Amino acid sequence: MYYGAIEAGGTKMNCAICNEKGEILQTVRIPTENPKETMEKIVGFYEDYSLAALGVGSFGPINLQRGTPDYGRILHTPKVKWEGFSIYEYLVEHLGCRVVVDTDVNAAALAEYLYGALQGVDNCMYVTVGTGIGAGIILNGQLHHGMLHPEAGHILIGKNPKDLVKCFCPFHESCLEGLAAGPAIEARAGRPGSELSQEDPIWDLESDYLAQALVNYTLILGVERIVLGGGVMEQKHLFPKIRAAYRKRMGGYMDTSQLRNLDTYIVPPALGGMQGIKGALALVLPK
Amino acid sequence: MYYGAIEAGGTKMNCAICNEKGEILQTVRIPTENPKETMEKIVGFYEDYSLAALGVGSFGPINLQRGTPDYGRILHTPKVKWEGFSIYEYLVEHLGCRVVVDTDVNAAALAEYLYGALQGVDNCMYVTVGTGIGAGIILNGQLHHGMLHPEAGHILIGKNPKDLVKCFCPFHESCLEGLAAGPAIEARAGRPGSELSQEDPIWDLESDYLAQALVNYTLILGVERIVLGGGVMEQKHLFPKIRAAYRKRMGGYMDTSQLRNLDTYIVPPALGGMQGIKGALALVLPK
Repeated sequence: MYYGAIEAGGTKMNCAICNEKGEILQTVRIPTENPKETMEKIVGFYEDYSLAALGVGSFGPINLQRGTPDYGRILHTPKVKWEGFSIYEYLVEHLGCRVVVDTDVNAAALAEYLYGALQGVDNCMYVTVGTGIGAGIILNGQLHHGMLHPEAGHILIGKNPKDLVKCFCPFHESCLEGLAAGPAIEARAGRPGSELSQEDPIWDLESDYLAQALVNYTLILGVERIVLGGGVMEQKHLFPKIRAAYRKRMGGYMDTSQLRNLDTYIVPPALGGMQGIKGALALVLPK
Repeated sequence: MYYGAIEAGGTKMNCAICNEKGEILQTVRIPTENPKETMEKIVGFYEDYSLAALGVGSFGPINLQRGTPDYGRILHTPKVKWEGFSIYEYLVEHLGCRVVVDTDVNAAALAEYLYGALQGVDNCMYVTVGTGIGAGIILNGQLHHGMLHPEAGHILIGKNPKDLVKCFCPFHESCLEGLAAGPAIEARAGRPGSELSQEDPIWDLESDYLAQALVNYTLILGVERIVLGGGVMEQKHLFPKIRAAYRKRMGGYMDTSQLRNLDTYIVPPALGGMQGIKGALALVLPK
């Protein structure tokens, strides 16, 4: 019995084939071009296997209302060629197997929940901080969707008056992604964040912006642990800085056992870049 | 068969006795003093009835983890006499019936969901804006708790640089309750908000602060409708102002059918001040 998993990103599609134990047998990376070309290659990769089911963790925004005709359809997006394209419909038609679609970050959250840093934590989230910022949310042990899917990377935060770089988000004057994702760091520094020293004050600003968002996630969702992943978070020195900023911003307001130790509250991922594909697989693997 | 409902507030306890249809037969209002005096009066009100069950919507913070020894116990609070007191334990001991405890705002959210402005909306919330700000949240048709209960009234928001009044919250430099609850409005105006004209620019500031929070609730939770209640929201002219500020702050980013009509997205309550008691009752009434 074979299962498929696709991590569908804006620049590449990571595809895997696994057995029913979730062991990865084969992988391929396909560049994200037009839907037609890209999907033909994906189907080509899978068609020699008779898949029992295929899980997809996709970029968004994407319709996730199961049982509606638009389930798995990409919505209004800057990736114009993909707008209106139904990943779900295409894969069901061409592979004839069960297909389950969720967001890339929800898949990552699920993988960390089942196999990684969020195990046993029934209210939790995975936040990726890279060229964009996104979040997957698990509440009461289930992936949360709401009316679409969480867009928590774009929450409004207070801009530091000393920060002269304009918010990068074309929609918001002052949102997390626009102020704290890679491009904003690079604009402040004049070079990529990876080239900055650990002592650069840009990291204090970055940590405060992230802390503002994390405090709001805690206050609204009551999450018991937050994983921070993505390219920017490869700067491991950020973790203590973010925890300190979080403590200051929370001001002791919410007092729970989980919050008393921020070292176990705000943590790095445990799956070393495999969250996306393992999570996509977990969407369809037998429990 | 009789059911009891208590809306437990910081200044008064609204108590009701109902039949199994939820029809209120008798009510009493008991001032909130010491736990001992207050609870004795409450038990006195109920003890002639053999209650099948009693629902409580309480001020917080309060432990809501069912099955733990601290379920229904008031946590660290400025109401020092109540800190550490277990409403649940006292009522079970003295009335011998099933007791279910939740927050006052979760009870209000539940009532609006079952009988009011949130009917049929499975992801929704009730926000009260008065001397404080609190929120009850329903996700997938169930009250949400997380590790404690939502404290969404205290989320951090960006302070308008022209706003010279200090944030009233003793914990946060710039949070919703501290900037947008009644005391902040009164401090800006030098008199209660109820005495201000509808054209006062204070209402634009108020609407923007509330809109910032509502946008974040939408982006994080994916709620499909938000009820705004409480004393401040008796100023009905605020609704169009908040909707306009919300539209501006969201910047067209999230595009769902629900958000296309903000007149049905941000709405007043439908239960005319009876949310709290009806919701407390709904915690225990047979479905």
